Amino acid sequence: MPSAPPEDGLIIGETGAQKLVGYVVDVSHADGRARTYLDIDDRHLNRHGVLHGGIISMVLDNVCGVSASLSVDASGTAPFLSLSMTTQYLAAAHPGKVTAIGTITGGGRSTLFIEGELRDADGKLLATSSGVYKRVPQDKLKR
Amino acid sequence: MPSAPPEDGLIIGETGAQKLVGYVVDVSHADGRARTYLDIDDRHLNRHGVLHGGIISMVLDNVCGVSASLSVDASGTAPFLSLSMTTQYLAAAHPGKVTAIGTITGGGRSTLFIEGELRDADGKLLATSSGVYKRVPQDKLKR
Amino acid sequence: MPSAPPEDGLIIGETGAQKLVGYVVDVSHADGRARTYLDIDDRHLNRHGVLHGGIISMVLDNVCGVSASLSVDASGTAPFLSLSMTTQYLAAAHPGKVTAIGTITGGGRSTLFIEGELRDADGKLLATSSGVYKRVPQDKLKR
Amino acid sequence: MPSAPPEDGLIIGETGAQKLVGYVVDVSHADGRARTYLDIDDRHLNRHGVLHGGIISMVLDNVCGVSASLSVDASGTAPFLSLSMTTQYLAAAHPGKVTAIGTITGGGRSTLFIEGELRDADGKLLATSSGVYKRVPQDKLKR
Repeated sequence: MPSAPPEDGLIIGETGAQKLVGYVVDVSHADGRARTYLDIDDRHLNRHGVLHGGIISMVLDNVCGVSASLSVDASGTAPFLSLSMTTQYLAAAHPGKVTAIGTITGGGRSTLFIEGELRDADGKLLATSSGVYKRVPQDKLKR
Repeated sequence: MPSAPPEDGLIIGETGAQKLVGYVVDVSHADGRARTYLDIDDRHLNRHGVLHGGIISMVLDNVCGVSASLSVDASGTAPFLSLSMTTQYLAAAHPGKVTAIGTITGGGRSTLFIEGELRDADGKLLATSSGVYKRVPQDKLKR
Repeated sequence: MPSAPPEDGLIIGETGAQKLVGYVVDVSHADGRARTYLDIDDRHLNRHGVLHGGIISMVLDNVCGVSASLSVDASGTAPFLSLSMTTQYLAAAHPGKVTAIGTITGGGRSTLFIEGELRDADGKLLATSSGVYKRVPQDKLKR
Repeated sequence: MPSAPPEDGLIIGETGAQKLVGYVVDVSHADGRARTYLDIDDRHLNRHGVLHGGIISMVLDNVCGVSASLSVDASGTAPFLSLSMTTQYLAAAHPGKVTAIGTITGGGRSTLFIEGELRDADGKLLATSSGVYKRVPQDKLKR
């Protein structure tokens, strides 16, 4: 398990899911909050021609999980599981860049409460999330 | 807007997001509940080598949205938006086939409450969801 | 900590909150699922003359927490904390008796996923909930 | 339907549920966000001797619903229904004063997304909520 962050602070193509969807994770900020960027194109759209709600949840779940990891060390890779997550879909997201950010609101060593926000390039709030994340012991990574 | 279901009851590759992730939607069942199938492979995995929580939410959001559509007509394509969705991640999903199913629990003409379940090939419950879905008027499809 | 259930299986007026609101907890069923009963009267109503949404959440949180306790022993009093809970308000509840029931859907020894349902005397579904509940170690009961 | 706020900006004992639990609603702030105050005593406690999770949800649901009403007029009484609400229980609340505040994050004329926060007298964050609230047409107040 690496404990140092990537040199430029960006995590790209780390997992199958990340390669598939194409989001970029940024752990370079000193405030302990991860950012996740997605450049929305046709591959991410739903029937209505806007960003699929499932991908919104995916990006928010990602940014909250990495923010959880940042509470352990700066690598942003300490393993956490999502126990529960609620997404509120405030507005439709059109093709272009969106940014998600995660904020830890409470919890202790093993359980964290984390809220996420997704905004478009103009700063418009598109979706919010709140979730419970659990630290994975090293010996249970493949539960 | 089509009002007839596809001949074999399956909706495949309809949207960019569906093509990207590869899930298959089944609207052939007479009980008004959609099924969504996903054959999990490396492209869907997270850091822990199991199905990404975001894709779990995506499949559940999809099956609930299509179940909402089935309340309008058998095509499964009447447009609905997700207002809010909560996912509970009960167990890790390993590569192989998973099936999601949506059930309308309440609501009226414009707002529906829908619950989703995701199970593996052995019927093991992997995740549940509950959400609020809203009918989109024809003139507001691109809000 | 008692480990035997009350003789008639009912827990009444155990806590300040329970005395205040007046719900009755039933741990007599062999299926491991608690029931909570409330006889709705004027004290429980909101501005619209129907059961207050907060009391709906309260009864559902209660029945899920007690169902969690029943996974430990038949007394229904093993301590659990709510980490997160989502309530879906399907229909208004009018004065009269309502019954909530909790069902464990997943989890392990320390964390449980539990769903709740609230129905009126005719069996009509009024609200559902899903939540994450955590076992409280004996030495942390007053965190 | 009154459209003016109460003279001192406080709503006290308006409904049966409010009289029962004893919270005070404050609609005097010019920022459009309601505050709800509760002075926690023995009547509000759970088995662990801390504020009952159900009452936490109740206060948060209340403050979000009144914040919704403030989007219509300053009286804070325009009727809204809760469709869905998620509460995250971050920390235990001990006897003493707590304050909830509601913030509208999105939505339109009929549906609003609202987040709530509950803090103790020292400003410590105890719980958060996010929910979907729906404007009630005058002719459907008793659905």
